[in-house]
Amino acid sequence: MSKVIVLDKRPVGTPTLSDFKFKNEDIVDLKDGDLQIKSEYVSVDPYLRGRMSDAKSYVPPFELGKPITSGIVAKVVASKNKDFQEGDYISGILDWKEEQIISSEKIKEIRKVDANQAPLSAYLGILGMTGLTAYLGLTEIGKPKEGETLLVSGAAGAVGSVVGQIGKILGLRVVGIAGSDEKINLLKSEFGYDEGINYNTIKDMKAAIKEACPNGVDIYFDNVGGEISDAVLFSINKFARMIICGAISVYNETSVPKGVSVQPFLIKNSALMQGFIVSNYQDKFPEAGQQLGQWLAENKLTYKETIVDGFDNIPQAFLDLFEGKNKGKMIVKI
Amino acid sequence: MSKVIVLDKRPVGTPTLSDFKFKNEDIVDLKDGDLQIKSEYVSVDPYLRGRMSDAKSYVPPFELGKPITSGIVAKVVASKNKDFQEGDYISGILDWKEEQIISSEKIKEIRKVDANQAPLSAYLGILGMTGLTAYLGLTEIGKPKEGETLLVSGAAGAVGSVVGQIGKILGLRVVGIAGSDEKINLLKSEFGYDEGINYNTIKDMKAAIKEACPNGVDIYFDNVGGEISDAVLFSINKFARMIICGAISVYNETSVPKGVSVQPFLIKNSALMQGFIVSNYQDKFPEAGQQLGQWLAENKLTYKETIVDGFDNIPQAFLDLFEGKNKGKMIVKI
Repeated sequence: MSKVIVLDKRPVGTPTLSDFKFKNEDIVDLKDGDLQIKSEYVSVDPYLRGRMSDAKSYVPPFELGKPITSGIVAKVVASKNKDFQEGDYISGILDWKEEQIISSEKIKEIRKVDANQAPLSAYLGILGMTGLTAYLGLTEIGKPKEGETLLVSGAAGAVGSVVGQIGKILGLRVVGIAGSDEKINLLKSEFGYDEGINYNTIKDMKAAIKEACPNGVDIYFDNVGGEISDAVLFSINKFARMIICGAISVYNETSVPKGVSVQPFLIKNSALMQGFIVSNYQDKFPEAGQQLGQWLAENKLTYKETIVDGFDNIPQAFLDLFEGKNKGKMIVKI
Repeated sequence: MSKVIVLDKRPVGTPTLSDFKFKNEDIVDLKDGDLQIKSEYVSVDPYLRGRMSDAKSYVPPFELGKPITSGIVAKVVASKNKDFQEGDYISGILDWKEEQIISSEKIKEIRKVDANQAPLSAYLGILGMTGLTAYLGLTEIGKPKEGETLLVSGAAGAVGSVVGQIGKILGLRVVGIAGSDEKINLLKSEFGYDEGINYNTIKDMKAAIKEACPNGVDIYFDNVGGEISDAVLFSINKFARMIICGAISVYNETSVPKGVSVQPFLIKNSALMQGFIVSNYQDKFPEAGQQLGQWLAENKLTYKETIVDGFDNIPQAFLDLFEGKNKGKMIVKI
């Protein structure tokens, strides 16, 4: 028997616990080539909100009554596959289940991870999609040049905290926007940010950005969208690159979000906005992963996790993302 | 003596004739290396509206009391420069003057044009900035692939009418948005557009775009901004490229224009928006100009001009752009 979390209702606006449902499921017998795995760490991410709706999106919506999936690190507890042994650790986009079977056809969607190289949870964060998103978004779209100014929204979040550090390694001036003084302190003390803006205490966001970025904004790594990103437009430089990674501030809106028309700003500044998901750059994963691993080994990168305990708390941990309760990557330890 | 048109007041909102002032100016004697030229054709363009304000923009604002400048084809009426002879035709960004002196230091900013190769006015349009803007915007940012759907706003305008034709040459399905049935007919009969949408008679712009672009929009060449461009967002495909060339619908707004937040659409579709001005691609002008000249010689390209007569009518011709009174390029014949 394994607990399973399925999507029970499609949320309208902000998701609630009642959108999820816990079920029990029998573990079937292993066939040749199959693995049985036990979830150890489960990643909760803002983008999952999109999959809970049935609107057209870059990834298909979750099905009602079917398990939610996200990044998971799991331990092999039984194997009928010659490439995996009991005790191995793997990661992949897997079902929210305590235990599950990986059929031989699905084996190619998981990869082994090395518990000796880095803590297991790091494979959901800085050595996983989070780190790849930060690195590839910043380098492939941002095309940073030494001395430029990088502004990051959601700067204390999972992706933002990595973006800032990579920006510093690459020789940029890095300014972060986050929602509490505690987070602003963290940005500067832990993640190397040069300057921080607390959007919850600043009265005039446009003025605050201008002050924190006296040479204007060359690269904007956007995790939040909405009013914060509207304010950034007034400070962009010629040939600015805006990396549109997330829009957590509007994910729960029930009508089409409105804001400043970006087109006149793009024309005036010959500026770029590029939306992306990390899988667009799949061919660059090995190279990027190696670079991140090297920087981590050299102690040039650090990371922060907010770890919540217990399988039953996965839905609440997910909901807490929209309250900004995480610092760095939000992970549930099973 | 030469008539000169100077900027008298910075317009608030829609410009009026009273923002311009006519003056008379003596023609000074030619120094060595100088040319005296007489304007033959003067281009009026929406982007000039931006230069009439003193807001930060990609080109410096016009100075109050100083001549307006735009693309002009002129005839050399006196020359003390060995490279130019009386009777030669030149083009460049020049002052709104009947006659003027080009000093030796400014010679590099003009180029000779050949009256035998194409009508002189074409050097302000299809063989000038208009054609280069259409070609380089579409190819450099749009990166068109055969069979894709190209949607163009301001499709009957100077740039739009060229974009559509180039789109057809490159094997795209081309849909245009314009403001009258007469323009829609023109798009289809003259410029090879597959389909046209009249934004003045359509009730539901989103639905009209979906119907005219059943396979979605891969490339959007945007000349207008505002509500029309907001509606396009609902039909963009994965990896869509939006070429932000102009925003004539909002140039005269006195407050910051608002509209649909684009970020969620960019994320969902891994889509790009890129603002530009043609001079960003200056290194590609020779190659692009050659291609346009060749297509024109092969009768693969056609163009439409709205020609207004008389130096005194330049300001009114400019104002008429915002009423959509032009079909194709708006030009004043002196």
